[in-house]
Amino acid sequence: MTEDHLHRIRHKPLRERVVSAEEAASLIRDGMVLGMSGFTRAGEAKAVPLALAERAKAQPLKVTLMTGASLGNDLDKTLAEAKVLSRRIPFMSDPALRRAINAGEVMYIDQHLSETVEQLRTGQLPPVDIAIVEAVAITETGGIVPTTSVGNSASFALLAEKVIVEINLSQPEALEGLHDIYIPTYRPTRTPIPVVTPESRVGFPFIPVPPERIAAIVVSTKLDSSSTIEAPDAETRAIAGHLTEFLKNEVAHSRLPGHLHPLQAGIGTIANAVLHGFIDSPFHDLTMYSEVLQDSTFDLMDAGKMVFASGSSITLSAPKYRDVMARFHEFKPRLVLRPQEISNHPEVVRRLGLICINTALEFDLYGNVNSTHVMGTQMMNGIGGSGDFARNAYLSVFVTKSMAKDGRISSVVPMVSHVDHTEHDVDILVTEQGLADLRGLAPRERARVVLQNCVAPEWRDALADYHDRALARGGHTPHLIEEALSWHDRLRRTGSMRPE
Amino acid sequence: MTEDHLHRIRHKPLRERVVSAEEAASLIRDGMVLGMSGFTRAGEAKAVPLALAERAKAQPLKVTLMTGASLGNDLDKTLAEAKVLSRRIPFMSDPALRRAINAGEVMYIDQHLSETVEQLRTGQLPPVDIAIVEAVAITETGGIVPTTSVGNSASFALLAEKVIVEINLSQPEALEGLHDIYIPTYRPTRTPIPVVTPESRVGFPFIPVPPERIAAIVVSTKLDSSSTIEAPDAETRAIAGHLTEFLKNEVAHSRLPGHLHPLQAGIGTIANAVLHGFIDSPFHDLTMYSEVLQDSTFDLMDAGKMVFASGSSITLSAPKYRDVMARFHEFKPRLVLRPQEISNHPEVVRRLGLICINTALEFDLYGNVNSTHVMGTQMMNGIGGSGDFARNAYLSVFVTKSMAKDGRISSVVPMVSHVDHTEHDVDILVTEQGLADLRGLAPRERARVVLQNCVAPEWRDALADYHDRALARGGHTPHLIEEALSWHDRLRRTGSMRPE
Repeated sequence: MTEDHLHRIRHKPLRERVVSAEEAASLIRDGMVLGMSGFTRAGEAKAVPLALAERAKAQPLKVTLMTGASLGNDLDKTLAEAKVLSRRIPFMSDPALRRAINAGEVMYIDQHLSETVEQLRTGQLPPVDIAIVEAVAITETGGIVPTTSVGNSASFALLAEKVIVEINLSQPEALEGLHDIYIPTYRPTRTPIPVVTPESRVGFPFIPVPPERIAAIVVSTKLDSSSTIEAPDAETRAIAGHLTEFLKNEVAHSRLPGHLHPLQAGIGTIANAVLHGFIDSPFHDLTMYSEVLQDSTFDLMDAGKMVFASGSSITLSAPKYRDVMARFHEFKPRLVLRPQEISNHPEVVRRLGLICINTALEFDLYGNVNSTHVMGTQMMNGIGGSGDFARNAYLSVFVTKSMAKDGRISSVVPMVSHVDHTEHDVDILVTEQGLADLRGLAPRERARVVLQNCVAPEWRDALADYHDRALARGGHTPHLIEEALSWHDRLRRTGSMRPE
Repeated sequence: MTEDHLHRIRHKPLRERVVSAEEAASLIRDGMVLGMSGFTRAGEAKAVPLALAERAKAQPLKVTLMTGASLGNDLDKTLAEAKVLSRRIPFMSDPALRRAINAGEVMYIDQHLSETVEQLRTGQLPPVDIAIVEAVAITETGGIVPTTSVGNSASFALLAEKVIVEINLSQPEALEGLHDIYIPTYRPTRTPIPVVTPESRVGFPFIPVPPERIAAIVVSTKLDSSSTIEAPDAETRAIAGHLTEFLKNEVAHSRLPGHLHPLQAGIGTIANAVLHGFIDSPFHDLTMYSEVLQDSTFDLMDAGKMVFASGSSITLSAPKYRDVMARFHEFKPRLVLRPQEISNHPEVVRRLGLICINTALEFDLYGNVNSTHVMGTQMMNGIGGSGDFARNAYLSVFVTKSMAKDGRISSVVPMVSHVDHTEHDVDILVTEQGLADLRGLAPRERARVVLQNCVAPEWRDALADYHDRALARGGHTPHLIEEALSWHDRLRRTGSMRPE
């Protein structure tokens, strides 16, 4: 090993703690709880978990793995296949791990992303034995400077018995100064979280861990995985168009200013495409207060549309990553990365009055949204931060294409098969067909605008027929309870929601 | 009319605005939006809405009625039967109005109670034409001093074009000084809400309305209706016992201090009984940060167990009301009433780390809670503040008896027929059978503790059988989607969930 890494460990006594990934992984014992960096494929520790998976081949062991959110570099796949995971908290998006979760082999605790560390610090989740945090540097005082995400890393490191730091030499040192590490004070004597604008800086630019708790330092060079979002298509462009028109109308009616309110957008192709659509909008001086900063954030900055973005991670496509890092000095003054507890905090979300755009798997006539479970049973990814944002939003928008699987599935159904966001938390629904504004409407009225505006033409009659027959039976939220989930049952049996 | 009321109108020019209820009601025109005081049968305007209902007999008209929450004095019944209501926001609990809502005659917008005025001040709900607010007095500057509730009265009065004040001579003048009227600043430049303890006083003791907007003053003498809660029975005592044992264990494990955290309890017999149970507990120096202060609050104060209570209304049984008002000077220093936006604010709820106890209509194997809809269709009352509290609680507890209708209904079902609180927002479930601690558990594990601890013995086999067969099919949240709502369908067809 060369000595290249040493200048990144500015607390000199800690330089003696540099060990191999295998040695660091040997600190992990069967039954432990690990708190690892990593949020939506950004900034996860890489070397130690891979060494752990390798070791498990000869020496089986099980751990509870907590992270910020999903991991890149196939780590969840590798760990799941090595059967190292007994319990996974609070988010994932890997197909192999998903299979293990749905088979009941891994216990998955699907949580609001702002809540994990609250439960941890109050002893309502089992304590973290070892935190494993990717860093670009360790400061003179032993402070850990994270890389492309903050996630839950700060609280994991502060609460864990021992900390393993992975210094990633491929992550540019210019990232230092990007982060704002603020930890809320203990309840019930907590003081207000002082974030009052997306730009607010209220904490340290590093995680202030006592150096003696850093048990091992590993040097790595593996890059983050690129984001998997797809390019906008005609349908996502239509969704973006409907939402832009709607927001222009809100501005015209003085319900929003021309720079809108700070924006939040969920991870994924559709939400990214919607934000992309703002490049051609009349909105200006936009800000973001979101979890994940995707390609669209930087494209909006380059287009002169966005002035500042706050997130908990930066997750980019490969070309965008190269471009952003090459001119990081241009973006850095307009960015901050925060702990996910702060990026997603109900207090701050409500205070800033966010416009929140999240993706639905399906929604129903009355505006209930399912964003996690296929056919009410099979976990896709998890609720992530969507609940933190949608509940407290100024405007809570959910987007989806009106159909899936070549039209065999309608994303608009009589009753969702699982509820993540209740009718109370959903203001606006958008598909490529159009936009339903549910604000101030009773369930029967909501059904009318959903039917008119959001449903694919080939599914409209069937859904209207269900609603008419339910209306005849009455009720505040009319349903034919014996038939409400029949579309999902048909899908399960025949692979299509279409009548047999 | 005597002149008794005049000293209560301390702003002398306003004394000229005193008119009859009929004259005041004549300001109301067809199609208007009314914002009225009243929160859980406390402090509603009484004379003007009754005059309005009377007038509608000869001269039909329709209005949108917004309040804090439910109304006493059969006002919702009278207004519904007079067919005055086209739209009702955000909560009600009257059987006659419920029938009209379920028949689709009144459009009911069932909202989180902290959110109505947010939507109102941002123009996302139609503007209030006339606010009608019950008061004990009008100050020298024209400030309105509310009576037994604050609810949404302050924002209604501040946002309405005109204000009608009902000076209620039966409400004791000693109520003045009880209220703390704080209105959050506008978003997105809002500053933190400065409430940091249940005791925090951060606003005015009156609603600071410009006197010229007070269009009419009416004098009334009708008392609030008494609360309808029933005395604790063996089952509610058992629920209280399970919860007390659980909390003692949390204290023993240092997850809670001996004075617990501030308590919130939903309105109703079970939640009141649970609080009552704390009289015989070892907990001490308790505080409340809740919506409604019920009999149990004052009993806990008298028992030396509770030191302070913050709410948005005081709703008492008839004997307790007489007792409390007779020695109000003893209680007043230990009470504050706030706008429901503040009593229920996610920011404050999360900050204070509340222990929240709310009532479920039914819950399912996986911890999803229905608190509003019978058989997924018929509205009972509304979600009220339960969502504001449960989502942001330190500990979110839902209580219910394990069976209803003489055992024909199990309150624990395979899948709830309507979701108000998702699995993510529910920590603890309690029935008279026992308590399920769902924290940190995956759905399959939750199902096991729910089956073991919460289900009535006569329903346990049927529910375990459902779960076993669902498990065989797999999935993160195992369900037989074709059978998940069959218990509710049977209830609909036969009046019982029992197999035919």
